[in-house]
Amino acid sequence: MKVAVVGLGLIGGSFALALRAKGIASRVVGVEANPLHAEKAVELGIVEKVLPLYEAIEQAELIVLAVPVDAIPQIAIKVLNIVSDNQIVIDMGSTKEELCEIISRHPARKRFVATHPMWGTEFSGPQAATADSFAGRNVVVCEKELSDAMAVEKIESIYRQLGMSVLEMNAEQHDLHAAYVSHISHITSFILSTTVLEKEREEETIFNLAGGGFDSTVRLAKSSADTWIPIFTQNKYNVLDVLREYIHQLNLFRKALEKDDIQTLRDIIDRANQIKRVLHK
Amino acid sequence: MKVAVVGLGLIGGSFALALRAKGIASRVVGVEANPLHAEKAVELGIVEKVLPLYEAIEQAELIVLAVPVDAIPQIAIKVLNIVSDNQIVIDMGSTKEELCEIISRHPARKRFVATHPMWGTEFSGPQAATADSFAGRNVVVCEKELSDAMAVEKIESIYRQLGMSVLEMNAEQHDLHAAYVSHISHITSFILSTTVLEKEREEETIFNLAGGGFDSTVRLAKSSADTWIPIFTQNKYNVLDVLREYIHQLNLFRKALEKDDIQTLRDIIDRANQIKRVLHK
Repeated sequence: MKVAVVGLGLIGGSFALALRAKGIASRVVGVEANPLHAEKAVELGIVEKVLPLYEAIEQAELIVLAVPVDAIPQIAIKVLNIVSDNQIVIDMGSTKEELCEIISRHPARKRFVATHPMWGTEFSGPQAATADSFAGRNVVVCEKELSDAMAVEKIESIYRQLGMSVLEMNAEQHDLHAAYVSHISHITSFILSTTVLEKEREEETIFNLAGGGFDSTVRLAKSSADTWIPIFTQNKYNVLDVLREYIHQLNLFRKALEKDDIQTLRDIIDRANQIKRVLHK
Repeated sequence: MKVAVVGLGLIGGSFALALRAKGIASRVVGVEANPLHAEKAVELGIVEKVLPLYEAIEQAELIVLAVPVDAIPQIAIKVLNIVSDNQIVIDMGSTKEELCEIISRHPARKRFVATHPMWGTEFSGPQAATADSFAGRNVVVCEKELSDAMAVEKIESIYRQLGMSVLEMNAEQHDLHAAYVSHISHITSFILSTTVLEKEREEETIFNLAGGGFDSTVRLAKSSADTWIPIFTQNKYNVLDVLREYIHQLNLFRKALEKDDIQTLRDIIDRANQIKRVLHK
């Protein structure tokens, strides 16, 4: 299968490597606006070459959109404007409502399969890409009833070959759940980092004491603004909703600690411990 | 060396296993109020047997206090009341000011070395203990000028044999830094868990989407209330100070997102990204 990957960062780069490692793609070309990333992606063997968008599409059976989510809808339209019935277009973005709305009435909508592989790291760029990234993770496919059935089957089969499990959701559900489970984690991490850097002026001390739990909770604070600001703004209402609840619950904890209200602190922590049950099943 | 470990949970149990694995302890006995933990600790070979406090101390050259921090000061006094000049007492608690104040004028103060190995997991109890837990981590030794020099040397040497690096701090500094770097991380994780469990009623969905960053930021929310409530209350003023700053910075982020103030969001994330520099040096 010939594949064109648009956006050779962490996600697009990893997908390209995985497709080749599994023998799914015979040839992968890339599209990349950043010349340093383009050069690096070729140097690392992630893609054979980097081409202008239209040239790359022309040669591809599968076109993968892996750019930041604010850029996906417009590129999706441009690509759908020229694809044939032998081509499939997918995206890998972390938000889905805006995209699905923009492409909803396009005459070639059926050629598009909206997906979100639930994997990422705090690193970005082609140098962060790895071939075995997707195995064991879930991928969400949205609004599959609007895609060509054979295209969906093909894409799901590819994800399964990469070791992923496929879930279905509509775009609205996806964005709601993603805000609750993924997007809020990035905000709590970013702000943990800014708070600790503000309060703890001795960087050496942060480094030395990080073993006490800080390192894992702050990991996501290394994530890129270019990736995450578009996600937060596209999913603004869901993200604000969960963020307000988070601040509310932090204030309940703060007040309980201020008043030495041990019973409330214990109730909160006992409830928090319930996550064991959810994540270990 | 004969060792008595008081409190056979994650930390005490791991220390007992590590001492034996490195050949530092010839014999380890335990003291444990919870009969199920006591039985488990013997069954797992963490200690040879579990004894009443005074019997255990009698036979030991080193007495290790690894109970929750609210219980440490009183046990420390009881132990110091009966130790001889051939015995050393250490604690492994996550707060130090209260303890160091309580023991400060005890005639046997010199026999005590106040330490905090910067390691832990979200699990608790003897079944969570592992022999190689401390290697590669830092241990803080507090107020060492109040301890017998040879006792300090002996304890530091033991920690180094376990692969740890030794740092010095006074108790006040320790508690301040621990609030900033370790204690706040547990609160952000506990509240992330309660928020997501409150907002996201579909537990299956939490499980399925957790790969999007939630799993690492929420890991510490599995931690035990028995361990952490005493830490938060003993270190209340430092913890509240950093918690208030955290809530303040979250509100700045929330307001920027409400107003689509992209530049402020970018400034916040760029600042958060600085943690890369601190944790990677």
